[in-house]
Amino acid sequence: MAKITSVSPLAPAAFPDLPVIEGVRFASIAAGVRYTGRTDVMLAHLAPGSTVAGVFTRSATRSAPVLDCQAKIARSGNEGAAFLVNSGNSNAFTGRHGVESVRAVTSGVAKVLGLPGHRVFSSSTGVIGEPMKHERIVAKLADLKEALTAGGIADAARAIMTTDTFPKGSGTEVDVDGQTVRIAGIAKGSGMIEPDMGTMLVYIFTDAKVPQPVLQSMVSALNRTTFNCITVDSDTSTSDTLLVGATGASGVAITEHSIGFMEGLRRVMLDLAQQVVRDGEGATKLVEISITGAASDDDAHKHAKSIANSPLVKTAVAGEDPNWGRVVMAIGKSGARADRDTLAIWFGDIKVAENGWVSPDYSEDEAAAYMKRQELIIHVDLGLGGGTARVWTCDLTHGYIDINADYRS
Amino acid sequence: MAKITSVSPLAPAAFPDLPVIEGVRFASIAAGVRYTGRTDVMLAHLAPGSTVAGVFTRSATRSAPVLDCQAKIARSGNEGAAFLVNSGNSNAFTGRHGVESVRAVTSGVAKVLGLPGHRVFSSSTGVIGEPMKHERIVAKLADLKEALTAGGIADAARAIMTTDTFPKGSGTEVDVDGQTVRIAGIAKGSGMIEPDMGTMLVYIFTDAKVPQPVLQSMVSALNRTTFNCITVDSDTSTSDTLLVGATGASGVAITEHSIGFMEGLRRVMLDLAQQVVRDGEGATKLVEISITGAASDDDAHKHAKSIANSPLVKTAVAGEDPNWGRVVMAIGKSGARADRDTLAIWFGDIKVAENGWVSPDYSEDEAAAYMKRQELIIHVDLGLGGGTARVWTCDLTHGYIDINADYRS
Repeated sequence: MAKITSVSPLAPAAFPDLPVIEGVRFASIAAGVRYTGRTDVMLAHLAPGSTVAGVFTRSATRSAPVLDCQAKIARSGNEGAAFLVNSGNSNAFTGRHGVESVRAVTSGVAKVLGLPGHRVFSSSTGVIGEPMKHERIVAKLADLKEALTAGGIADAARAIMTTDTFPKGSGTEVDVDGQTVRIAGIAKGSGMIEPDMGTMLVYIFTDAKVPQPVLQSMVSALNRTTFNCITVDSDTSTSDTLLVGATGASGVAITEHSIGFMEGLRRVMLDLAQQVVRDGEGATKLVEISITGAASDDDAHKHAKSIANSPLVKTAVAGEDPNWGRVVMAIGKSGARADRDTLAIWFGDIKVAENGWVSPDYSEDEAAAYMKRQELIIHVDLGLGGGTARVWTCDLTHGYIDINADYRS
Repeated sequence: MAKITSVSPLAPAAFPDLPVIEGVRFASIAAGVRYTGRTDVMLAHLAPGSTVAGVFTRSATRSAPVLDCQAKIARSGNEGAAFLVNSGNSNAFTGRHGVESVRAVTSGVAKVLGLPGHRVFSSSTGVIGEPMKHERIVAKLADLKEALTAGGIADAARAIMTTDTFPKGSGTEVDVDGQTVRIAGIAKGSGMIEPDMGTMLVYIFTDAKVPQPVLQSMVSALNRTTFNCITVDSDTSTSDTLLVGATGASGVAITEHSIGFMEGLRRVMLDLAQQVVRDGEGATKLVEISITGAASDDDAHKHAKSIANSPLVKTAVAGEDPNWGRVVMAIGKSGARADRDTLAIWFGDIKVAENGWVSPDYSEDEAAAYMKRQELIIHVDLGLGGGTARVWTCDLTHGYIDINADYRS
């Protein structure tokens, strides 16, 4: 899992210039939880008055930190908050020891920062089933507090990486009634990616003033069309966590009707979600699966996921083969409604199939040329109704096997 | 798809000696549907008085031959029957042309053999979405009739192969009230294997005398714990077909209470199903996933399939890594009931995890040694109820990518 790989060919040119969010400070440190020679713990401190919302994996075997976050997320408080994240060990399926580790880390942070325990949220990512050496993290908490700085978000994005090949960040500025609100977020994730909620580890910050219930309902709603619409390998992590903190430092009040803010938050969430797919283990192509004309949105989502997770579709994309027969197969097996004779399929703008057969104008040479692109769109219209969905996936290559068939080192 | 690969390391040493089924004759021929230098069409003729039962893919995009078989399967008749199968082209998603191809082939067989059209069942396997050159098959039908012979089943098994690396056969003799009944079957399948019914192409013959409704209900019931319990890559074919023909030539009458016959049929079906997994594209390990203690049999099946289809579990098996954390992950994401703290996991006889954590006696060295075997059992007890399931899968290797990321040749 910890194999060093070269940077994904789909990576952005550079880590983006993120807006500074007033009221949030970051620090990272090398605690040696598992890795050596790199940072592996990040701390974010949110000023008093901040609200926090989150969504978490629905896995039945979710990790101890996830269970702890879920127990705390709906409780409010004006004392500020903190996120403490380590890489190298996921503290999942670690029994009573895992619960102990969460308590040690969160109570340590609470003490150092003068916060109540229920305002400290922790996440862990890495190997499943090994006891976490939490004492190594606790030993660094005072140093982490000293290192807190408003500009530390890019280093924080690096500290939470595992098999990631590049740090992931996204930010935006939004106009709300003539005033500016800023949003900045970071994410990690590369394999074991088919989030059943938010995903992987994602931390987003804003200086908007958002009541906790409003923030929570926005995050939960936006999650459905962003993080829940990506897949790398159909495997759902035990640790998926998305936390959003709003400091209120801009003084701009947000309500459930603040469409502009919600749209800005959506952009940042979608950008981070797509960056996770761009860093999919072994990925060389980013593929959007776009479904229209399904009997319902639910059906559209099932068709999209069935195509996006099909090993045969994903290997065809890797081989730059416009093998639309495999798309037909994936629609057929999805369990959602489909009628062979009303189906139409496009690769980009190239109509491949319609009326239950290959399109009369279809040129395989043209489609093969399209498949050589790094970013592809496969569009299917079911011809049944108004249901739509968009899902993002990557190809399945030798790189995925290399990374995951290696004995844990 | 048509890449020549060496024989699977999991293949049986040789094609088995199958019992001759009185009343069935086989022929194979090279018709050049797509492949050259090999046989690609097989014909089986069943004598008058035979009954036929079948199960077929539930894919919403199933092929023209499957739709034709489904329309005919429940109709009885005493005139005998025929199965005509070609490899190289699946005649799926081929619109009106596909329907024409089925009509041309089945009516051609009916004419040559003097059968009514509704007693001729055809299957096609190979590329999806390309019109089938059925005239090449029709041109060979008279030759096929001439070549019909009782001993032709092994050659028939070869004629229906696509990416298969070995022909698949299984047979048995069963004692029914002191009289002997024989069963013999053949199958093909290697990729696009997660049958949602019977699977792939499977043809089984017996000289027992079985009324069609009894045969159909036995085949449908046995299918649930045999072909529906295997997976290679979670992709469900558009052509999956299982046909069972009973000639009655032994004179031994079977009823729904003939447990011995049903058990013999089960053995042959399970053996053929496991041979398909043994020939899974790129497979180097055969893995049985055994679930006990689930809340229900349905839940057990969901957990088993979730583990069996997880790319991360399958790559860990390929890497001979006893990565039980990935088994925990797959249970968590399955959607079926699980309680982390009552879970227990074994690799073979080695207890890996219990009570929500690694087992105190677990030795990683011992587990790593076990993983080097060619045939593995992963056993999970949920600790919740009496639900059980067994599913067979293979590992995910570079071989799978090699076979499927190649541009169709």
